[in-house]
Amino acid sequence: MSLPEPVPSAEPGAAFLAEIREQPDALRRLLEHDDEFARVAAAARERGQLVRFVGHGSSDNAATYGVYAFGLLAGWTALRDSIALAAYFGARREMRGSTVIGLSQSGQTPDVIEYVRRTRLHGAFTVALTNETDSELASTAEAVLPLSAGAERAVAATKTYLNQVAALALLAAHCGGQGKRVADGIRSVADQIEHALPALEEQTQALALPFVFVGRMFVIGRGPEFATAREIALKLLETCKTAAWPLTATDLAHGPVAVLDPLFPVWAIASRDETLRAVQEAVARVHDFGSTVVASGDAAAAIADVDYILPVPEPEIPLLSPLLSVVPGQLFASALAKAKGFDPDRPRGLSKVTLAR
Amino acid sequence: MSLPEPVPSAEPGAAFLAEIREQPDALRRLLEHDDEFARVAAAARERGQLVRFVGHGSSDNAATYGVYAFGLLAGWTALRDSIALAAYFGARREMRGSTVIGLSQSGQTPDVIEYVRRTRLHGAFTVALTNETDSELASTAEAVLPLSAGAERAVAATKTYLNQVAALALLAAHCGGQGKRVADGIRSVADQIEHALPALEEQTQALALPFVFVGRMFVIGRGPEFATAREIALKLLETCKTAAWPLTATDLAHGPVAVLDPLFPVWAIASRDETLRAVQEAVARVHDFGSTVVASGDAAAAIADVDYILPVPEPEIPLLSPLLSVVPGQLFASALAKAKGFDPDRPRGLSKVTLAR
Repeated sequence: MSLPEPVPSAEPGAAFLAEIREQPDALRRLLEHDDEFARVAAAARERGQLVRFVGHGSSDNAATYGVYAFGLLAGWTALRDSIALAAYFGARREMRGSTVIGLSQSGQTPDVIEYVRRTRLHGAFTVALTNETDSELASTAEAVLPLSAGAERAVAATKTYLNQVAALALLAAHCGGQGKRVADGIRSVADQIEHALPALEEQTQALALPFVFVGRMFVIGRGPEFATAREIALKLLETCKTAAWPLTATDLAHGPVAVLDPLFPVWAIASRDETLRAVQEAVARVHDFGSTVVASGDAAAAIADVDYILPVPEPEIPLLSPLLSVVPGQLFASALAKAKGFDPDRPRGLSKVTLAR
Repeated sequence: MSLPEPVPSAEPGAAFLAEIREQPDALRRLLEHDDEFARVAAAARERGQLVRFVGHGSSDNAATYGVYAFGLLAGWTALRDSIALAAYFGARREMRGSTVIGLSQSGQTPDVIEYVRRTRLHGAFTVALTNETDSELASTAEAVLPLSAGAERAVAATKTYLNQVAALALLAAHCGGQGKRVADGIRSVADQIEHALPALEEQTQALALPFVFVGRMFVIGRGPEFATAREIALKLLETCKTAAWPLTATDLAHGPVAVLDPLFPVWAIASRDETLRAVQEAVARVHDFGSTVVASGDAAAAIADVDYILPVPEPEIPLLSPLLSVVPGQLFASALAKAKGFDPDRPRGLSKVTLAR
């Protein structure tokens, strides 16, 4: 199997930005496979109510969302399982009641493949969620779900992440008998992103200039939006060399808040759900340390005393808000990389496929 | 219930250092309760093979270790569960086959108590693991296991973390029918720490001076030692205002490696287990970016081309290595805080109990 080569472009970051803009279409492509998601969900339901995710980087961030999608849409327990336990230590645990979901854009991540291979031997129902349906991961798993994000040319993932989040929502919804409602919700979100993009591109460009000076920052969220915090932080780390780190709003208050000062800003993701108060309370503590605060998300306006605000539309289904709230972070990474003279299509020292294991 | 007040001391950080030194005795105190661990393990075995941990900060870091302890000593699945799902969203998931372990030094962490309360209502076997056996957490759970670390006066936890790790190893061992072997192993480790402390105090003091200049760093580990990486990073963040972040060795190579440069050192924890090669490979990649490397752990000498080395003794049972490998990180945090003029007994803006939820 061959991987798409980055297209040599005159403009650094052109592929990264193009792929952010392509996300509404990528989401619509995913929905064409709704029947396959329904079939895999039916097979998973026969196994039990325990789902194990494995993946690295953005794939692992999407899995953070998956814990909430399965918990809230299906009432199931989902976990980001230890890859090392199976792949390095050969631990043998009861797998017959489990559905395993291996997440990998390329389908080539070695220790994810090894985890899936072993847990399938031990009786799990294994599913590959990947862009490459003829990859080694796909042939190792019992079932394959196409991510349908399309060829990704920038090394830093965007549309793959968004489609992973949507795919986990769709699968969890089918497991919980709510497939149609959530598929319709994802379709509406695709339209909302499409309409919001032009204004967000302008706003994030304006924000990039002052953040050229930032060496370290926190990105906080809670509940499903902790996935968004993880993903935005990773994009900034990979493409902008900004040491951005994700924390839950509660964990920030528990200890790391002590490190803050005016050189150390905080990006808070605020969506209109049951966790909003926790985010509001965490930001209130941040102010005591003199940190600049950026608020994004559909409830950004509900955070008091912020320095910069990046609101997004509110989805019909609150649990789908992470599909919208990650977009300002992606666009900000694109603009900040450009302002710093970096190329997010080809960050120094990174390649598209993780071969480490 | 009243909490111990920090003792006003002439010397900032005196309590923090004293509590690090007290850890061998704290481990021995824990072992006096071996019978209680055996009884709780017997009750857990009747429920099934799924363990859910909840805790914040150091408690959550210990839970990272617990995933490996239960996986390797008992062959069970353990997870750091989402607190928000139960405590904020009121998600109702099947709990009758689960053992819940609530970790909190003080037994007062509000959302941990709320999680335990709700999962107990839904049928889980709930266990409080806490220093304060008359706390609200203890009275909310069905069973209580005393952490026996003794009153902790420094805000930044050390002996509590160590006893949490040992307690999870002991409980997992009893669940897997290996209680005696692991209790003996912990006793030997207590002796090993006691003997290693004087040399480690000297070595970490020498290392503190150059690290005064460090604003950001990574701490990497893999498998059970990822818990150590998380705990060392948190100590540096809380007590030294160094933006230190934990990563698994594999995740470092997946993307964050791109942020490295000579201003951004990496601390690698290397223990003699199945993950050692992954750590060696990750450090090899770090060298390409010009980062200074510190290696600690019982296999520190097996990492090529490091700048600083902090070896610790090798335990009889490899899975107990995190009890030893965290100690150089604690001592380094103590020395670095002192070199920077900070007081780890009372970091600015922190209090002993997290009341956020």
